[in-house]
Amino acid sequence: MNIDDLYDRTPRPLLIVISGPTAVGKDALVKRMKELGYPFHFVVTATDRAPRPGEVHGKDYFFYSTAEFQRMEREGELLEHAVVYDQHKGIPKQQVREAIASGKDVVMRVDVQGAATVRSLAPEAVLIFLVASEEELVGRLRRRDTDTPEQQAVRISKVHEEMERLSEFDYVVPNHDGELDQAVAKVIAIIEAEHCRVHQRVVEL
Amino acid sequence: MNIDDLYDRTPRPLLIVISGPTAVGKDALVKRMKELGYPFHFVVTATDRAPRPGEVHGKDYFFYSTAEFQRMEREGELLEHAVVYDQHKGIPKQQVREAIASGKDVVMRVDVQGAATVRSLAPEAVLIFLVASEEELVGRLRRRDTDTPEQQAVRISKVHEEMERLSEFDYVVPNHDGELDQAVAKVIAIIEAEHCRVHQRVVEL
Repeated sequence: MNIDDLYDRTPRPLLIVISGPTAVGKDALVKRMKELGYPFHFVVTATDRAPRPGEVHGKDYFFYSTAEFQRMEREGELLEHAVVYDQHKGIPKQQVREAIASGKDVVMRVDVQGAATVRSLAPEAVLIFLVASEEELVGRLRRRDTDTPEQQAVRISKVHEEMERLSEFDYVVPNHDGELDQAVAKVIAIIEAEHCRVHQRVVEL
Repeated sequence: MNIDDLYDRTPRPLLIVISGPTAVGKDALVKRMKELGYPFHFVVTATDRAPRPGEVHGKDYFFYSTAEFQRMEREGELLEHAVVYDQHKGIPKQQVREAIASGKDVVMRVDVQGAATVRSLAPEAVLIFLVASEEELVGRLRRRDTDTPEQQAVRISKVHEEMERLSEFDYVVPNHDGELDQAVAKVIAIIEAEHCRVHQRVVEL
């Protein structure tokens, strides 16, 4: 036996899912991780909505026509997909495969329902649930300029339902107002710890 | 339902076991963690060997007579115990109970056999296995002044056997020559990640 065989393995790429209820700060957290320059592959979501001013195809979103999006859904090219306010959103499997092949850890931002789908397709995925207090979530929703009061009300009504799915996740990370960097540090610690697991999760999609 | 009830829990104390083969640097790692001032409770091992110059009872070891040590063994007061070169070593349960009651995470340094015992008694313990290459382990043993050549030979002969128990552990952390601080950082990340687990490990002894 060569002792070094037992442990000196190339770290396997991880599939990290950042999820949590509406307005908990999933986008903000992923944005901050990018700014800090971590060497992860950040998955870009596909959508059939029109690009907003300044948005770049392949960076902010993959922008497809509704017909093209529905074809991808039908042919199983999306890891998960959902309809949010009549807009389709989903994660292209091909992008995740390429990211894993590159040897980098893959980070994706998925809503609570989508995270369950990812787990069923990739049981080795590491599911992280961001949380904040109800007051914080409602406060953030009310300050959102992009939502109408009706949309805000719908989102608030879903918060309880979403929070109750916490137990389906592996880790819970608080993302309280003004504590984004602490939340990022916890996510980084989780990723580092997962790389030290003796029984590593093998990612195949 | 109060949403905050779902996640704003007081972190439960963890039982962290630092283990690994002979000469892998278990003592050095725990010493460095103490120097860096982490707020853990570091468990002190009990022994029936005589104190060396400068060693303090309750700090370096709990020094007991052989008769007292055997009484503790008999009456189940030790979490684990082993005979190493005719010297008894063991971990007093009472000390671990007090540490857990204090709310701090408990860090203990245990040999590979002892770690299996800790797991059987406390399944929620987090078992960390330090590793280095065979060349590094043998080199460190040869440089040890405290061991006779015969003791070194016995220790080297046990390295393979000890390494093969890696799969009984939760995490593996490399502790290569000159990389002690990297090893400490990984252990700290593991502890931080374990505190974020949705299904927390409840420690009771």
